[in-house]
Amino acid sequence: MERITSRKNPYIMRLRALGSDAAARAASGETALDGMKLLGEALASGAEVTGVLCAEGAEVPEGLESRTYCAPPELVSYASPVKNSPGPVFSVRLPEIAAPASPRSALVLENIQDPGNVGTMIRTANALGIDAVILCGDCAGRSSPRCVRASMGAAFRQYVLECSVPELGGIIEAMGLTLYGAALTDSARDVRDLRLERAAVAIGNEGHGLSPELMRLCAGAMIIPMRPGSESLNAAAAAAVLMWEMARARL
Amino acid sequence: MERITSRKNPYIMRLRALGSDAAARAASGETALDGMKLLGEALASGAEVTGVLCAEGAEVPEGLESRTYCAPPELVSYASPVKNSPGPVFSVRLPEIAAPASPRSALVLENIQDPGNVGTMIRTANALGIDAVILCGDCAGRSSPRCVRASMGAAFRQYVLECSVPELGGIIEAMGLTLYGAALTDSARDVRDLRLERAAVAIGNEGHGLSPELMRLCAGAMIIPMRPGSESLNAAAAAAVLMWEMARARL
Repeated sequence: MERITSRKNPYIMRLRALGSDAAARAASGETALDGMKLLGEALASGAEVTGVLCAEGAEVPEGLESRTYCAPPELVSYASPVKNSPGPVFSVRLPEIAAPASPRSALVLENIQDPGNVGTMIRTANALGIDAVILCGDCAGRSSPRCVRASMGAAFRQYVLECSVPELGGIIEAMGLTLYGAALTDSARDVRDLRLERAAVAIGNEGHGLSPELMRLCAGAMIIPMRPGSESLNAAAAAAVLMWEMARARL
Repeated sequence: MERITSRKNPYIMRLRALGSDAAARAASGETALDGMKLLGEALASGAEVTGVLCAEGAEVPEGLESRTYCAPPELVSYASPVKNSPGPVFSVRLPEIAAPASPRSALVLENIQDPGNVGTMIRTANALGIDAVILCGDCAGRSSPRCVRASMGAAFRQYVLECSVPELGGIIEAMGLTLYGAALTDSARDVRDLRLERAAVAIGNEGHGLSPELMRLCAGAMIIPMRPGSESLNAAAAAAVLMWEMARARL
């Protein structure tokens, strides 16, 4: 097992880049994560773990000895994408997940800034059997370490697509779904009155909601009815309710 | 308007204590918060704002001049409960909210550690018209600055009760509600099969779920059906789905 002692070691530098830089993740198709639980999720999903960095004296994950490096604990912390690193730090290629043959439901997220929010929504989508999550516009990415962590590993298992707003229309059409946009407008239809057997629901940015461009792609606006005077739900809570409405009849 | 220049000024020390110390909040019935948006929510809800600390030169909130202090920006940051303080910092007594006369729904949270999670669930409860939120055992408190912030001010408007687990049984009985506990057990009943017209649902700690003591107070365990192989929803997403099921028929 190779021992690393320098911050300038190429593997340390690669972990740092993958942990902090979306462009580095996009270029290599990998991300950097931390902790035995996520490593277990990665392996269970069949993801390719491309390297592991353990603190000296810590347990080395079984079966990965040939790709494992060891280093002093402070160097492991330095390489980690999280603040209080439990270790090990590892690099992993998120698996390609086959597109569902005849999708019946999708969640579209537009310009959601917080990767933790995106990860939570991927986790909920996976648990409720939503066929696709589509990240649209300037959304935090599926491979962001905070997203994968908040997803509790569901980012390894869920079919997730990234696209621009102009591409979205064709994608939804090819899936044969009807797209509704969550919006707090007077003309929005009550989610309880919609037929959602083959539908996609779109949720917009935490502060600004959906863009006019995306709303134009929708068959209509939908709303979760609320107590009068109440402002709104947060994006992840609204997504949970809307996905449940799509999934409710077939879980 | 009094000008403060020292970290040892009594109002600065009070804001620091309210921002960081649950016992100080409990003793005075106040909390410390930051930002114009929350200050607006506090005033709109009729909460008593007991003091305001503004940066020199910043806008002084209208009508509060007699209770407003000013200080150099770094002292405002020092007094603030948040990391990047937009200011002003203020102290406020959370309003007493009258118990609903004939409650039909309640959310019970047990040992939820993250105040942001508690705040998000209070926000969802308020939006969906849930009559009471009951914080049970070792739960993050309603008056925690992070809870109030995550609630987007709903903590000012929502009826919230704090109690011990042994007290919970009597409270639920007095409300005339049937208590169900969210649990991933084989005997748990599908939420879609339960009658929730007059019900309370209990959600447990992020990692450990509900305690056996609390489960013993429940009429039964309930589960949100999930895709096979899926682990779980996060507490706030599960709460959103369960509250929606309670509220769905009457919103």
